[in-house]
Amino acid sequence: MRDIFELRDADGAGRIGDLEVPRAGVTVETPALLPVINPHLRTIAPATLESEFGADVLITNGYIFYKSDEYRERALEEGLHDLLDFSGAIMTDSGSFQLSEYGEISVTNEEILQFQHDIGSDIGTPIDIPTPPDVGREQAEAELETTQQRLEAAEDVGVGEMLVSAPVQGSTYPDLREAAAEHAYGTSLDVFPIGAVVPMMNNYRYGDMVEAILAAKRGLGADAPVHLFGAGHPMMFALAVAAGCDLFDSAAYALYARDGRYLTVSGTDHLDDLDYFPCSCPVCAAHTPDDLRNVGQDEREELLARHNLHVSYREIRTVKQALREGNLFELVERRARGHPSMVDGYRALLDAADQLERSDPVSKGSFFYLSGESARRPEVLRHHERLSRLPVEGDRVLLSEGDTNDRYDETWRLQPPFGPFPSALSDSYPLTAQLPDRLDVSAYTAAADGVRALAEANPGTEFAVGHWAWPEAALEMLPEDVETLVLGPDSVPPEEASDDGE
Amino acid sequence: MRDIFELRDADGAGRIGDLEVPRAGVTVETPALLPVINPHLRTIAPATLESEFGADVLITNGYIFYKSDEYRERALEEGLHDLLDFSGAIMTDSGSFQLSEYGEISVTNEEILQFQHDIGSDIGTPIDIPTPPDVGREQAEAELETTQQRLEAAEDVGVGEMLVSAPVQGSTYPDLREAAAEHAYGTSLDVFPIGAVVPMMNNYRYGDMVEAILAAKRGLGADAPVHLFGAGHPMMFALAVAAGCDLFDSAAYALYARDGRYLTVSGTDHLDDLDYFPCSCPVCAAHTPDDLRNVGQDEREELLARHNLHVSYREIRTVKQALREGNLFELVERRARGHPSMVDGYRALLDAADQLERSDPVSKGSFFYLSGESARRPEVLRHHERLSRLPVEGDRVLLSEGDTNDRYDETWRLQPPFGPFPSALSDSYPLTAQLPDRLDVSAYTAAADGVRALAEANPGTEFAVGHWAWPEAALEMLPEDVETLVLGPDSVPPEEASDDGE
Repeated sequence: MRDIFELRDADGAGRIGDLEVPRAGVTVETPALLPVINPHLRTIAPATLESEFGADVLITNGYIFYKSDEYRERALEEGLHDLLDFSGAIMTDSGSFQLSEYGEISVTNEEILQFQHDIGSDIGTPIDIPTPPDVGREQAEAELETTQQRLEAAEDVGVGEMLVSAPVQGSTYPDLREAAAEHAYGTSLDVFPIGAVVPMMNNYRYGDMVEAILAAKRGLGADAPVHLFGAGHPMMFALAVAAGCDLFDSAAYALYARDGRYLTVSGTDHLDDLDYFPCSCPVCAAHTPDDLRNVGQDEREELLARHNLHVSYREIRTVKQALREGNLFELVERRARGHPSMVDGYRALLDAADQLERSDPVSKGSFFYLSGESARRPEVLRHHERLSRLPVEGDRVLLSEGDTNDRYDETWRLQPPFGPFPSALSDSYPLTAQLPDRLDVSAYTAAADGVRALAEANPGTEFAVGHWAWPEAALEMLPEDVETLVLGPDSVPPEEASDDGE
Repeated sequence: MRDIFELRDADGAGRIGDLEVPRAGVTVETPALLPVINPHLRTIAPATLESEFGADVLITNGYIFYKSDEYRERALEEGLHDLLDFSGAIMTDSGSFQLSEYGEISVTNEEILQFQHDIGSDIGTPIDIPTPPDVGREQAEAELETTQQRLEAAEDVGVGEMLVSAPVQGSTYPDLREAAAEHAYGTSLDVFPIGAVVPMMNNYRYGDMVEAILAAKRGLGADAPVHLFGAGHPMMFALAVAAGCDLFDSAAYALYARDGRYLTVSGTDHLDDLDYFPCSCPVCAAHTPDDLRNVGQDEREELLARHNLHVSYREIRTVKQALREGNLFELVERRARGHPSMVDGYRALLDAADQLERSDPVSKGSFFYLSGESARRPEVLRHHERLSRLPVEGDRVLLSEGDTNDRYDETWRLQPPFGPFPSALSDSYPLTAQLPDRLDVSAYTAAADGVRALAEANPGTEFAVGHWAWPEAALEMLPEDVETLVLGPDSVPPEEASDDGE
């Protein structure tokens, strides 16, 4: 059991947690964003990150300091916190990125870990091998073997109170990701980055990204803080958090700004294509796109970077608020509609509804039915599984969208997308869900799945379905021996009828 | 033809326009938000609206001035612009709201129009009868008759350059709304508020709201500026613009703030329920919810009102940017997922895809397939209608998701949700649509509709469908005489195959 990470609110596989960073004397609330600071290019000063954006953690690259004539000695003498002028927690990377970009680096795993410790890093990183997507299985396995040796070696480096990351690799092989995560979790290391997802994100492969996260999560304990390494685009924060990520790092805010690119929660715009700023941050409330086009490159870059950071921190806050209110899935629904590839990511998440169901709270604030995808949420799956355990009393049972009928021994409520439930559960989450009047077929077919689950668990019972004009596709999915009655327009649900009578 | 309103970019029934307000000497770009100013309660000063939020138009209530001991004479002497300290356009309401709330008002239609003119209003309003939803048809007809008499009377009041509104009523009767709109458009009046939608919005009846807008639009010419009267919640701006509204007015920003309510583009939160601000506006970037809970009532109210205005203006800019880029439907998709009732509104909009199709541009920037609803967009409908006019050459035609086949005279591409199209159209909007890899059944059934449309238009031609494992529900919708071939996994679309060979 890792006692540096304390979990609070949960929703799906997402959670709010407190990550204690002992060397910094700081507790970081997750989900958290770690802005990347390159000492050679400080678009926004670390002190500004702290004062203007409330940053309490950042990430920089230990290998850049190691190789820098300008900064190496100063970092060793002053320490990173004084050198960068930042009082929060500082995480460092190891040179793995340089290794994957340039093929070699001039430092060993043990040396760079020791160096990270010596310059005052609060969370260090060994040199793992970031295996790209779609490589042959042999390469993925061989590189993972090396990464695992590096993690084991890292356990023996004396780094005092510095936390150490244990990156999880495995390319696009879910079983390798899961095994890698199990191995990493078995070490004494502390924080678990999911590595080499950047090429997936750069190619809008959000379905693959979600599958990689979910596979890693299956190998990690619930108390493992999970870092989506290199992931800084706010469009996928909600999705990645719902899949179980706690930490993000953003170089994007500055890199994109250099290029005139403007981040939003639904994608990336280019300043040249904007006539209006779809944002109310202090930069966008005070300037028009024309204003930014008409200032010098340095000022434009800084203003865009500030916008990019504002929208990123805003999204972290939005995700946390959704976690607090128990409506993270509703937020993911909205964000999914930013891009077809995000829809893919959301559908990949729902493909794993059974995995999410295990950490999803039994009761939350509200369930909004917002699309055909809502019919596949873990709450619906859980209700269908529960149906096999709910006691059925009568021999002839009516499952009714509307009123009851004396011909039956017992009447249950029937409500898309959940299906049947005893009236006594009407006020329990998620059966209090709010639905649009204009329902999609998916809601009805999910309800038919529920009827089937109940009928299969009670083979001796005769069931009938009372419905208001369900679509043919849903009626066809009902078990063959279930009778159906079309209700009249005056038929109202049992408790609404009794409410009227009170 | 009304020459005060010039239309530019269009998307669905939405548009960017320039509304010339001659008496103010101002041209207002639409969609525009008119913040409501109550002279007795100035939460945010008009001069601040102008300097901080860029407001170039606001609305106030002429009847309040008419009845005010404090302001009546000052308004007549100084004029509204000096009295309120606002240099943009000023619209005035007439007392209709007070009439509907209190049953009577002490002014005639002609008197209040003349008074609005005399205090310097730039856009005045007659006293219409705001008929609530769900009243009996006789009441709706009788009240509409009165409204229509008032509009006709308004034509004869000498108001110089002041524009005059012609409110469109009709309760929840679409045919009355349409007739009311036709009548209003036939007068010499200038701006067309859709009235009495506030009770619908207060009850989250966005489906009914969309139906009322669409009915009114059917009776109005394209050059009619349309005002959604009383509508100030940013969650529905995109939806209402896509249905054809140009002007909104917001009392909500101030009224909600008084009550501790916090507007977002997906609904309303209460300050008490917020742990994090899901926003980056200058108020939310500089404060936490706790900060706001700990200041005095006046300061809290002002800060919340400023946030509420920031998010409202941000949404107007977001809608305009979407109109410019031709992705307003994508924005509506995202906003629809804020609440089940907004899904209803979006589905009601898609129920009228044929009406929207008439004003929707033939080519736009991109088509993102984002949900089952995307299969019902006007662009898909238009393609299906076009299929009956596209020439088919061969006797045996293969419609293929993958490669071609020598057994057929001709091969067309096949792509959910559009269905078949000649390869030559592959690069034309909307056939360049981006889709998720994980497609929903609606995309396939829409494609099957397309096949059916083509087959019905070419009864002498033998069609075959080459597909990769379409779901049963879509295959069942194909015409019976269409042969189906399941393609192998190696099959690739024709032009991709030829691209590879180049």
